[in-house]
Amino acid sequence: MLYSVRMRAAQGGSHEAGGKHISGAERLVSYEQLRPTADAMLERALSHSRGAADFINITIETISMSTVREITCLPINSVNVTDAAAGRQAAQAKLVQAGVDPVAAVNGMEQLAGLSSSLRGAMLVCAKTGARLDSTGQRGIRVSRMDIDDEQAYDDWLTGQGYCNIHIREAVVLASKVVAAPEVVAELCWSDDPEYTAGYVATPVAYTRFTHLKPYGSEVGGRIFFIKENADLEKLAAYLKYQPVLVKVPPKEAKSDAVSR
Amino acid sequence: MLYSVRMRAAQGGSHEAGGKHISGAERLVSYEQLRPTADAMLERALSHSRGAADFINITIETISMSTVREITCLPINSVNVTDAAAGRQAAQAKLVQAGVDPVAAVNGMEQLAGLSSSLRGAMLVCAKTGARLDSTGQRGIRVSRMDIDDEQAYDDWLTGQGYCNIHIREAVVLASKVVAAPEVVAELCWSDDPEYTAGYVATPVAYTRFTHLKPYGSEVGGRIFFIKENADLEKLAAYLKYQPVLVKVPPKEAKSDAVSR
Repeated sequence: MLYSVRMRAAQGGSHEAGGKHISGAERLVSYEQLRPTADAMLERALSHSRGAADFINITIETISMSTVREITCLPINSVNVTDAAAGRQAAQAKLVQAGVDPVAAVNGMEQLAGLSSSLRGAMLVCAKTGARLDSTGQRGIRVSRMDIDDEQAYDDWLTGQGYCNIHIREAVVLASKVVAAPEVVAELCWSDDPEYTAGYVATPVAYTRFTHLKPYGSEVGGRIFFIKENADLEKLAAYLKYQPVLVKVPPKEAKSDAVSR
Repeated sequence: MLYSVRMRAAQGGSHEAGGKHISGAERLVSYEQLRPTADAMLERALSHSRGAADFINITIETISMSTVREITCLPINSVNVTDAAAGRQAAQAKLVQAGVDPVAAVNGMEQLAGLSSSLRGAMLVCAKTGARLDSTGQRGIRVSRMDIDDEQAYDDWLTGQGYCNIHIREAVVLASKVVAAPEVVAELCWSDDPEYTAGYVATPVAYTRFTHLKPYGSEVGGRIFFIKENADLEKLAAYLKYQPVLVKVPPKEAKSDAVSR
């Protein structure tokens, strides 16, 4: 038996009451890890760089192991860029390379860049046209019920490549779940943490990190999933929200060559 | 600044999805107490006599001290009865003494006794007719955002009278908030904990505990608030759900005489 532990924190009231999203977290843990995990999430919600939360919600649910799907973690590549403009150009090229139509890549990027406040979840946009496909507005679709299978092995794998921040730690797990969906062509994301300028493009082949995808100090972030034309959106949303996924650290030989960090 | 910490736990899915209510808890605590309080609630949800929860939700919200209302804790009287039938008869007499119409006292008692599963919150019933006034069904109205002002003084006060279980500890705080509402004539409650047979009638004057109000082993409990005719139900529900209340331990001279325990 596993436990899904989910946290969301907001400022100025609950998310439902229009509060500003401060932080969120997702874990799948054992009974023994349950209470320490919830406590760590609480601590995190109370001390986030986006501000102090005045609303925190933690939900815990049992997950039967028989429902858990195992997938392999994406290899990570890192691309150094000098600023957000250069990063966005490179990310756009990566999206197109993954099969996103150039028009859709531009449209999607503009939608993410044009947000006035952060999305708690993700936008679904058409990989052909760039038109938004979901109707969840500012809430977006939250990816839930996933975690790394072996925490220690994952930390070793990440630090061995020079990655040691919590953003990438969580994003690689999330992106690995997202692009394992057959409906997804690619994901584009940059953080809502004002101190964290890096972002990524994830495809079924790799997680490509760009050192700058937004200017330092910007609190507006979010994620876009580029979706195949005529995909079953309900099926996709159910997978993203409800399918428990444990992400396995890739075997040694499949390690990214990590040419640059 | 205070923090409202609320927990609800269910089995067989969330409450919203029709799961069976396992336990709930309400606290108003300082920043320092926040994390230990949430952790203690989690522990409690995981080890309740009603069963193991497979859904737990903890919500935390800041409460400005300026919005907090202070009220005095009800004195406690205890009435020994031999069984649930005798307890219910005595409780009915206490309700009538408090101003509940005999018809309404009988009707209310029958509604509580006739439940097939526990109510998470309370039923509002007319103190004149016994007719149910709220439309919250099996959910009931949950009393929220209250706590004891001085935990140590309260524990001393309770144990000095021979009360040391968590049920009475929480129920006296809740009942003190409830009967402080001008719309409420009295409250009748017995627990959903199968191991706890005692229950109580609370009036603006006292909390009267009956040693048996239901048979041992019964998992069905709930609470009824008897409401004055023509009361403003919306105002009452808002008070019960949202008004932060700190309950103060009564001064020494106001101590209950606690003739029997």
